[in-house]
Amino acid sequence: MSELLEAAAEAGRLDAADGLAALRERFVLDDVVYLDGNSLGALPAGVPARVEDVVRRQWGELRIRSWEESGWWTAPERIGDRIAPLVGAASGQIVVGDSTSVNVFKALVAAVRMADVGRDEILVDATTFPTDGYIAESAARMTGRSLRPVTPAEVPSALGDRTAAVLLNHVDYRTGRLHDLPALTAAVHAAGAYVVWDLCHSAGALPVGLDEHGVDLAVGCTYKYLNGGPGSPAYLYVRRDLQDRFDSPLPGWNSHAEPFGMRPAYAPASGAVRGRVGTPDILSLLALEAALEVWDGVSVEAVRAKSLALTDFFLRCVGEYVPDGLVESVTPAAHAERGSQVALRCDDAGDVMKRLVERGVVGDFRAPDVLRFGFTPLYVGFADVERAARVLAETLG
Amino acid sequence: MSELLEAAAEAGRLDAADGLAALRERFVLDDVVYLDGNSLGALPAGVPARVEDVVRRQWGELRIRSWEESGWWTAPERIGDRIAPLVGAASGQIVVGDSTSVNVFKALVAAVRMADVGRDEILVDATTFPTDGYIAESAARMTGRSLRPVTPAEVPSALGDRTAAVLLNHVDYRTGRLHDLPALTAAVHAAGAYVVWDLCHSAGALPVGLDEHGVDLAVGCTYKYLNGGPGSPAYLYVRRDLQDRFDSPLPGWNSHAEPFGMRPAYAPASGAVRGRVGTPDILSLLALEAALEVWDGVSVEAVRAKSLALTDFFLRCVGEYVPDGLVESVTPAAHAERGSQVALRCDDAGDVMKRLVERGVVGDFRAPDVLRFGFTPLYVGFADVERAARVLAETLG
Repeated sequence: MSELLEAAAEAGRLDAADGLAALRERFVLDDVVYLDGNSLGALPAGVPARVEDVVRRQWGELRIRSWEESGWWTAPERIGDRIAPLVGAASGQIVVGDSTSVNVFKALVAAVRMADVGRDEILVDATTFPTDGYIAESAARMTGRSLRPVTPAEVPSALGDRTAAVLLNHVDYRTGRLHDLPALTAAVHAAGAYVVWDLCHSAGALPVGLDEHGVDLAVGCTYKYLNGGPGSPAYLYVRRDLQDRFDSPLPGWNSHAEPFGMRPAYAPASGAVRGRVGTPDILSLLALEAALEVWDGVSVEAVRAKSLALTDFFLRCVGEYVPDGLVESVTPAAHAERGSQVALRCDDAGDVMKRLVERGVVGDFRAPDVLRFGFTPLYVGFADVERAARVLAETLG
Repeated sequence: MSELLEAAAEAGRLDAADGLAALRERFVLDDVVYLDGNSLGALPAGVPARVEDVVRRQWGELRIRSWEESGWWTAPERIGDRIAPLVGAASGQIVVGDSTSVNVFKALVAAVRMADVGRDEILVDATTFPTDGYIAESAARMTGRSLRPVTPAEVPSALGDRTAAVLLNHVDYRTGRLHDLPALTAAVHAAGAYVVWDLCHSAGALPVGLDEHGVDLAVGCTYKYLNGGPGSPAYLYVRRDLQDRFDSPLPGWNSHAEPFGMRPAYAPASGAVRGRVGTPDILSLLALEAALEVWDGVSVEAVRAKSLALTDFFLRCVGEYVPDGLVESVTPAAHAERGSQVALRCDDAGDVMKRLVERGVVGDFRAPDVLRFGFTPLYVGFADVERAARVLAETLG
């Protein structure tokens, strides 16, 4: 019982000292401890009014005129520029639209086409969220390359003269392991290949440093730590000096140099817009744009510091509250290897998660045996963390 | 002047006899004569409240639980089934998601893969909306086929043993010409090839009869005559007996037989869901679902009859009001060859359209010299048509 009191008091002290605590007011939240922002971010408070304006005024009153007057046409690159500082990119390199899967296809095919013709192999993270693997298989098939799944740790030794491109995850969706983006990017480049990073589980939770580390291409979703809403559009980063060589497998009219010229021959636009495809999905894009306003004045470094403090504190509370042997963390203890989630292996994990949700602690279950808890520093506090660990202990006890 | 009075009186009689006139109340409209529903449909009255519920309650309160509890996960196929009767398809053959361009890629690559290996040529409508041509070029390149642009009229003679697949538009985006879907489909089949129809400019304006005419694959957008909102998701039709052979170039996790099994090896789902790719864009999908409720109790045949009456009346009023030689219709006079738009060639068309818009008649301009007027039978009346022709005559006079 003293452990409980002690941890609760510590949570109070940590919350009082939390410089990001006030950001919680930028979201619509309730009594639930929401630790599933790594799957679907909570609703930013400014989104409903913006969406209503987009629907009622921009669509309902201005109708077709909004393509110019409401800035619809340029939304993909404008919102890309809003995401850019969150992933360490200068402007003009990110475009928003399509799903993560579709963007993986664009990026990986384009990476292969940038590589020397004789390079006949694509490496893919063997532990990846499945869609990246499926899409990589299609990209390999359609570009006449072979696909070789390897763990991120095996990448350095698997690289060679045959490697055209490598598709990696910054943070493992299941374990929460953070991979070494700078070192792996450098290793891929040393082998003369191109790297595509999937940032779904890192963007918005920790610094990425795309420009700083010379990443070639990257993709990510916007509905996790970026809080864009269910299935909100994904983004594609193409490093500036590679943009002229970005040869898209999906050259839709939106990436044409003169989209309203209605020319029968394709001529790609310059810059990030070359990653666009079809008509942009305005409703979802502009909801995302409003959602991104929660980042005004927020430092990603401060977010990272709080994220590590939250996951540290959760692991400590779990260690103190949950009897030995009932759960096992599969998330690395070292900060340099940890994203913003904690994954606990436990028996009957699916059933345990159901009971946690019933008691107001929302994480998610990943087959076959993982409880996943995501910590969004913008709206999760230390008292939430302590409560989650306590309810978990009670549920398992 | 007597012509004006006569046409205005005729408009009044036609509006009074219009069995679909009351449907206009299902939309948010104003004094503008909106003849651009073939580009962006007007706002259905039920959409704002639905979107607000999706944002505030489904996302804001239920959050992650909505994937099950609010039916988010099954939205792509559920909404596909709502579109199905509008294009003459039985349920279980349409899935909604991604842009038209992306769906053209899926459909055309899948069609080529269904064809015999020795068939090395893809035919594409040379007069197509450009994106289909660009995507067809990519599909040809990535499947090792050659691409041959031909006009729809040339298709029958161009078909042969080399033809793998044919990509055609049901209605030409520029001229409004309606192509003969049953005859062209039969011709493609007689040659042993597969056909992909782009329904962007026909679905919601006229009967398509996908099942009746044995169409193989079809795609279409939902933001024109289906009023789904700016950039709302497109759809993909795969005829039931071809679904097991649908081999997607974009095999994302949403099309996996067991999407939450998180399996490293891809195994395609059965049925229309095989056309899904990544996480569905819920906000836009559910706005579209609400928008489709305007079709409750509406017969597509009645819509087609009114559409032809509207375009007939517009051509008649233009003929009576506009001095000879100032405009020339490039839309076929024959009903069997006309979609639901009228395209008028005229000098300085871009400038003329600007002045029309300023005077409350909204159509659009397509380079280099076409004024495009779309007639959405659900909310355009005969008095609107008369006024549009009158303002056009005044603008040109």
